[in-house]
Amino acid sequence: MYRPQIKVVDCTIRDGGLMNNSKFPKAMVRNVFKALNDSGIDIVELGYRNSKEMFSTSEYGPWRFCDDELLKEVTDGIDRKVKIAVMQDAHKSISEDVLPKEESIVDMIRVATYVKDVDKAINLANNATDKGYEATINIMAISHALDRELNEALQQIEEETDIEACYIVDSFGALYSEDIDYFVEKFKKYIKTKEVGIHAHNHQQLGFANTIEGIIKGTNYLDGTLYGFGRAAGNCPLEVLVAFLKNPKFNIQALLDVIGKEIMPLTKKIEWGYKIPYMISGILNIHPREAMAIMNLPTDDPKRYNFKEFYEEMAKEDIA
Amino acid sequence: MYRPQIKVVDCTIRDGGLMNNSKFPKAMVRNVFKALNDSGIDIVELGYRNSKEMFSTSEYGPWRFCDDELLKEVTDGIDRKVKIAVMQDAHKSISEDVLPKEESIVDMIRVATYVKDVDKAINLANNATDKGYEATINIMAISHALDRELNEALQQIEEETDIEACYIVDSFGALYSEDIDYFVEKFKKYIKTKEVGIHAHNHQQLGFANTIEGIIKGTNYLDGTLYGFGRAAGNCPLEVLVAFLKNPKFNIQALLDVIGKEIMPLTKKIEWGYKIPYMISGILNIHPREAMAIMNLPTDDPKRYNFKEFYEEMAKEDIA
Repeated sequence: MYRPQIKVVDCTIRDGGLMNNSKFPKAMVRNVFKALNDSGIDIVELGYRNSKEMFSTSEYGPWRFCDDELLKEVTDGIDRKVKIAVMQDAHKSISEDVLPKEESIVDMIRVATYVKDVDKAINLANNATDKGYEATINIMAISHALDRELNEALQQIEEETDIEACYIVDSFGALYSEDIDYFVEKFKKYIKTKEVGIHAHNHQQLGFANTIEGIIKGTNYLDGTLYGFGRAAGNCPLEVLVAFLKNPKFNIQALLDVIGKEIMPLTKKIEWGYKIPYMISGILNIHPREAMAIMNLPTDDPKRYNFKEFYEEMAKEDIA
Repeated sequence: MYRPQIKVVDCTIRDGGLMNNSKFPKAMVRNVFKALNDSGIDIVELGYRNSKEMFSTSEYGPWRFCDDELLKEVTDGIDRKVKIAVMQDAHKSISEDVLPKEESIVDMIRVATYVKDVDKAINLANNATDKGYEATINIMAISHALDRELNEALQQIEEETDIEACYIVDSFGALYSEDIDYFVEKFKKYIKTKEVGIHAHNHQQLGFANTIEGIIKGTNYLDGTLYGFGRAAGNCPLEVLVAFLKNPKFNIQALLDVIGKEIMPLTKKIEWGYKIPYMISGILNIHPREAMAIMNLPTDDPKRYNFKEFYEEMAKEDIA
């Protein structure tokens, strides 16, 4: 039995782009898009729509900006059933980069924000819905949010926007199932006229489990990525999520096929998933920045495997 | 806050031995044992005590048999706080291989069984407790158990043994949290005078999450392995479990240190953990045998990455 209200969102190119500065070949993105379209999932996020004034176009690839022409090019000729989303970071994006809906094949703008930037996020979300798009607001680093500030932000989002969903984003992979219960209950208390979403990270191997917990508690927007490809320990793997959901509209073979063809080759160049440095940042509830630096050391550098030392350094700095 | 009744059991050498025919150098096992002893966990399972009549000693390494002399040798000189366990497979072990407790440093015999072999398991468990050991009975492949047969087996175990704990073993990594709830409730209905344990596998990245679910529902014997090292997708990683439990007696640094020194080198030779073929056997609730064969193909064999074909073959055979 499945819940038809559930929307499954793939963020492979967007979250995975945090591991390679959003540099993917167009042919690869086209194959991924095609497979996700065939799989029956609801929404595909193809990257960021961030500002070229804040990100250098020489340092970052095209999926950090997702120009409308680029999106048309990679999806051209594909019989599109899936909706296309792009993400705007509240503090790194501008409303002028969003064309009127009639001039774009984008369906949804997802605005990622820290609690402190919620006013910027509301501006961008309203810019999107005013221009004819669907929108979401995704509250990042939720495990660092102060309760009073979060409550106020949720109240504002409920009253001042017309978004589809407001997301719990466990950026540091720090949450346990009891934390998911706490946040879903809180979100539902304030967000009464929109859906609640969940975007989980896998630092403690709880990305999928926390997504299930979200489903049990009533979240209806669910993020995943192919083989969990995403920053640091990555995300809830889309393939296990789709297998769990049991909705007959899904075609898991399309996902398995593209993982073999497009994602497995990436595993030779980029290391994501459950690794001890990421696990350490997860249990300490800190940004994976230092863990990613450890993982980028040469494989013959002994410091890469001195997990005890890394833990002790990070625990010392854990003054959050 | 922690629950003092909880016993944490490491199975690294035992379950990991299913990936290399239990062939580990003595020095490595000694280092692993020392670290686990230092970490404050309760019980270390060093391998199987299976019959040499059923396993060839040339094909299998010494940790498939765990002779008492061997165990003494690798733990000699270590100030032992942790209990030592060995596992007997109900259908591959004999009672004569278990010496009287006075002649052994083993503290606990864990008997692994399918539901159909429960009478053999009860014989072996009673042999162990009669000789002075603690014992557990671990019911494997629980996701294939027929309800009526399982109920009868649990009733017998409750009435006819004096074991410490009876385990739910998710051999195929097929269970979701709602299944854990179902089995823990069932076990507690029949097993009133002993503890319930959980041994999870990670085929769907739910090994740790299902162990947490077990804790929430009242299981007090918890299995894990270093970095999840175990058959196929492996097990609940001990390091995240210990971090979750918050009992001040644990020293996570000892675990992180030995993972860097002894387990990371193994990752170069043995591939365990979340992989698509294992995930496929998990979602289909089948033995990972065929998935392991796929993973053993050369890395340049395209069949190794043709996940769609593998899924379709396995789904066809899924007549369980």
